[in-house]
Amino acid sequence: MSYTVAIMGATGAVGTEITELLGERNFPVKKLRLLASARSAGKTLEFAGEGIAVEELAHDCFGGVDIVFASAGGSVSREFAPSAVKAGAVVIDNTSCFRMDPEVPLVVPEINPEVLKNHKGIVAVPNCSTIIMVLPLFPLHRKFGARRTVVSTYQAASGGGAAAMRELYEETRALVGGEDFKREIFPQQYGFNLFPHNAPMKDTDSAGYNEEEVKMMVESAKIFGEDMKITATCVRVPVMRAHSESLNIEFERPFTVEEAYRVLDDAPGVIVHENRDANEWATPVDASGKDPVLVGRLRRDKTVANGLELWVVGDQLRKGAALNAIQIAEQMIVDHVI
Amino acid sequence: MSYTVAIMGATGAVGTEITELLGERNFPVKKLRLLASARSAGKTLEFAGEGIAVEELAHDCFGGVDIVFASAGGSVSREFAPSAVKAGAVVIDNTSCFRMDPEVPLVVPEINPEVLKNHKGIVAVPNCSTIIMVLPLFPLHRKFGARRTVVSTYQAASGGGAAAMRELYEETRALVGGEDFKREIFPQQYGFNLFPHNAPMKDTDSAGYNEEEVKMMVESAKIFGEDMKITATCVRVPVMRAHSESLNIEFERPFTVEEAYRVLDDAPGVIVHENRDANEWATPVDASGKDPVLVGRLRRDKTVANGLELWVVGDQLRKGAALNAIQIAEQMIVDHVI
Repeated sequence: MSYTVAIMGATGAVGTEITELLGERNFPVKKLRLLASARSAGKTLEFAGEGIAVEELAHDCFGGVDIVFASAGGSVSREFAPSAVKAGAVVIDNTSCFRMDPEVPLVVPEINPEVLKNHKGIVAVPNCSTIIMVLPLFPLHRKFGARRTVVSTYQAASGGGAAAMRELYEETRALVGGEDFKREIFPQQYGFNLFPHNAPMKDTDSAGYNEEEVKMMVESAKIFGEDMKITATCVRVPVMRAHSESLNIEFERPFTVEEAYRVLDDAPGVIVHENRDANEWATPVDASGKDPVLVGRLRRDKTVANGLELWVVGDQLRKGAALNAIQIAEQMIVDHVI
Repeated sequence: MSYTVAIMGATGAVGTEITELLGERNFPVKKLRLLASARSAGKTLEFAGEGIAVEELAHDCFGGVDIVFASAGGSVSREFAPSAVKAGAVVIDNTSCFRMDPEVPLVVPEINPEVLKNHKGIVAVPNCSTIIMVLPLFPLHRKFGARRTVVSTYQAASGGGAAAMRELYEETRALVGGEDFKREIFPQQYGFNLFPHNAPMKDTDSAGYNEEEVKMMVESAKIFGEDMKITATCVRVPVMRAHSESLNIEFERPFTVEEAYRVLDDAPGVIVHENRDANEWATPVDASGKDPVLVGRLRRDKTVANGLELWVVGDQLRKGAALNAIQIAEQMIVDHVI
């Protein structure tokens, strides 16, 4: 059994990562269709040793497509996903468009694969920072009961797409070269600088939080299937493609740090990555291009009962986006729901 | 009245900042002596329009010196500060050497200037990350009672000294130029990367925390004169000279976000710096070269009773080190304890 796969946003940072991973993982691709805006149509990208021309995305382009990976932005998904579903495809959506829609499963396959059965044509991939956080948080929560989590992120340029990565690179090159540079993506200097995530502010229930932070707070609850107390601070740092996160978790039940390490040693999609003797811990460069989320620096926080501090780093483009999407498709194939 | 001032570590990042600030603030300098290792002796640095030759630091070099600013590292302070005190000088020490010594006042002049009167020749300047955190934390604590604080830092290269700043710059230049680079200061890639602070690990009471984190936790309590529940995660990010910090504070008493803003509006050494409508907040570039610590992004954390999130950015070399040291000397002059 193999599938006709289409990628919406095929020339973007996540789209190209999906193409690469489909090959790397020997995903059963019968035919690959690369969809993008008119601007990119006609370009040729390589897959499985042959060049594939990029087609312009259109409402009537989904005939015969089994699986659509969507990563062209929320408004594009909102407009085109229904057409793909109508044409019989399953849409695995990397945008925020449908994540909180109660009809749409929001899935990290290591955590809640069972909800895939309930899909009605669209499955949502959580926000990258959410995925990277919940992979270690979920198994710890199951074992010790997470009462409250405080997270601060250190997010890479890739979260803003390929153009944001280019801007960080070009601005940094201009800074070390003493040249002028005109930013087009971010309002504030990014090279040798950082800034609170520029996602729009929420004005109502979560006054003062930005949308990226709210995603981490509400998506986690939907994925875990229960209320979760999470408060987030999201920050963009001048790093290319892996997000880091500092997690402080207060548990319901007592634990030892050794037990917590064992939980993470056994957790799918997670690797304990640290060299305690050398005082070296996971960095974005270590995580870049890798599938698992790297964790370490577990230590007891004595300011609260059952407190744990830990450090998490994950490739934003892989597990934070493209890999999670493909794992969803793989799981749906196994479950015969695609 | 004017003073003979000596700077130990005069050619370092903090030492040169002290020299600059002495001029900028019209500190009453009768004579400036620049002390450094044999390697730097003979160099000439400028102060108040004239060149001053750097002298080699020696035990017998403190004759006639009134004030010593020490920023040449903990082991240098440990060896030479007693000689300076014996010669009649007051030592204002920017290293960690004497900070937790019960005989030595640890001072942020906006917070605990009254302890300067108790000095016995040495006054300690807190760790840079500590100073930047406590400036907003203290007035909020006085007003609402801080029960527990969770902090994650985003620390600049300047915390590692001038050589660390050079290494970040040169490594980044090599990365954008596609050249090889051999690191000498940090064990892990710093350009376009970040890593948990490389201060040595603590093995006993605070197992798993590194010394930088423990400094934030214990120095704050000494400065406030009471036990404080603070847990810290310290991270070095590829930024030049200003530290950012994400603070989550749980207060004893109820407050409104507007009240918290008012407390910070009135707090000495702190400026509310944000453009909420434009979704732009303080960044390290905004804080660089500035005296006050910039704060903003105050928002209610609903995961706990009386929870507050905020964002703090301060110049590590100014308020985090050199400026705080000079302010201590200025206060001691006012108090006639120098």
